[in-house]
Amino acid sequence: MKIELPEVVKLLKEHDNFLILCHSHPDGDTLGCGFALARALRSMGKKANVKCEDNIPRKFSASCEIIEEQDFEPEYIVSVDVADTKLLGENVQREYGDKINLAIDHHSKNADFADYLYVDASAAAACEIIYQIVCELGVVITKDIADCIFTGLSTDSGCFRYSNTTPRTHYFAAKVMECGADAAKINRIMFETKTKEYAILERMVLESLKLYCDNKLAIIAITQDMYKTSGCSEDECDGIASLPRQIEGVLAGVTIKEKKDGKFKISVRTYAPVDAAQICSKMGGGGHVRAAGCQLEGTLEETINTIVENVKEFLV
Amino acid sequence: MKIELPEVVKLLKEHDNFLILCHSHPDGDTLGCGFALARALRSMGKKANVKCEDNIPRKFSASCEIIEEQDFEPEYIVSVDVADTKLLGENVQREYGDKINLAIDHHSKNADFADYLYVDASAAAACEIIYQIVCELGVVITKDIADCIFTGLSTDSGCFRYSNTTPRTHYFAAKVMECGADAAKINRIMFETKTKEYAILERMVLESLKLYCDNKLAIIAITQDMYKTSGCSEDECDGIASLPRQIEGVLAGVTIKEKKDGKFKISVRTYAPVDAAQICSKMGGGGHVRAAGCQLEGTLEETINTIVENVKEFLV
Repeated sequence: MKIELPEVVKLLKEHDNFLILCHSHPDGDTLGCGFALARALRSMGKKANVKCEDNIPRKFSASCEIIEEQDFEPEYIVSVDVADTKLLGENVQREYGDKINLAIDHHSKNADFADYLYVDASAAAACEIIYQIVCELGVVITKDIADCIFTGLSTDSGCFRYSNTTPRTHYFAAKVMECGADAAKINRIMFETKTKEYAILERMVLESLKLYCDNKLAIIAITQDMYKTSGCSEDECDGIASLPRQIEGVLAGVTIKEKKDGKFKISVRTYAPVDAAQICSKMGGGGHVRAAGCQLEGTLEETINTIVENVKEFLV
Repeated sequence: MKIELPEVVKLLKEHDNFLILCHSHPDGDTLGCGFALARALRSMGKKANVKCEDNIPRKFSASCEIIEEQDFEPEYIVSVDVADTKLLGENVQREYGDKINLAIDHHSKNADFADYLYVDASAAAACEIIYQIVCELGVVITKDIADCIFTGLSTDSGCFRYSNTTPRTHYFAAKVMECGADAAKINRIMFETKTKEYAILERMVLESLKLYCDNKLAIIAITQDMYKTSGCSEDECDGIASLPRQIEGVLAGVTIKEKKDGKFKISVRTYAPVDAAQICSKMGGGGHVRAAGCQLEGTLEETINTIVENVKEFLV
């Protein structure tokens, strides 16, 4: 059942012993939401843990510091920034997928899997929603909570650069900075710092860049070989999907990442009027209007052909 | 004489027939200031022109749209974002350098060349000051003015990423977005769009990257040959100076650009506690604590040696 913000706040106040679920392959927004909300609930004297299928990448440890797990039986299960239970990852989905009481999300196409659903698709980051919830709960926003929320705001908006950024995103960023969020440090870790290995990989990827469809479609590919040669690990490469769209005139930028099992993870980034979610849903995936994804199988060449075939009709 | 903001507003209200001077090699902040202030003064029924020694790079034309020159004899000369008259460029300095009535700036080391000087070094962009001035003047912030101010805020703060960004920077960004600033478009042009020529140059530059001083100093060099080979023009390369500092562990990133006359323009970007302004002042230049510059002569090898010699003592 879809509900509004005051009801979300009421449900959180009424319940205790929370398990907060983040999506797998966690990013700054789902982790920022999870740890900010858990800290807020704990500061109200409640118990709350955060669960994620995958390990938390090192770069998030500074801002979304993992909190010590509390010992209790979960009574109220909340998902944050999770559009579909299959995004929870296999194990978490199996254990909790059909038991989620409340979903807090900013994906317009949330699969509506929880007892209660609050979606605000105008939020650049789900952390914009969590900021409002934390305020409404009457919780004092500590530096820890502020850091979590800033991490979500900043990472999901591409450091306030993407078109999803609204005045509200900036207002909330200002507010959490005033509460002590170390914006400069977080942005430095999220956006400025490259390992030497990543710099090498980026150079290799740039060399693989090819243009299609009258230079409106740019495709890059990262193979398992490239990870090996550069020494760069896969979870360091989240930012790379923004590269192909950066070429002047490109309306759709596609990143192909070869996974360990040989399948390809596809990330699509677009500029208006090209709809990334539409493109990816044609290939069995989904997402946002400017950033979406899907998975493809076959050889790299076949995969590129599939992408070009599916993207070209959107570029006319 | 140093003055405060209310006196700046009073001076602008009292006078007419303004000539507003931007610094040479104009960036988004000096142009944003110039055109926002000129538009604001014109909307009050006053006459105002903007002057810059150099042509305005194409990428600024969308946000800081050049306004039609008005025909009048300048009576009150205002510089914006100009730390020293030598930064006006040779011709503008010769004509107006000793006639500047009011300097509005955010460089703490402003050379104090004007009759009246207002410096707010806490402003990430001089456009933060101009926003306040425009509000105090009682001017309605049109979309044109909002676009100019957003351009300055965004470009001088590295799209809200650098450590100079404060809550106020975000608040003002929110305000001008509410007045119609097309933030997504401006950020796209300023930060996301690379020409194919620039992408080629960037690849060449990354290959030139070398690390010194225990990997704490990274140096890249752009030669005139690289401009020729890539087809990339010099004024497209402003953003490249942020590249070397991005390598993990690097505290000082230095960009060497060979100019047409064979001299080298040096840009230094640092992380705390390394002071870029101190480093550059040792080499005859200056700037901000995290971003500064100077000029060197000699062979490329000599230049690199000079830089390593001057930087290394700051890295211990």
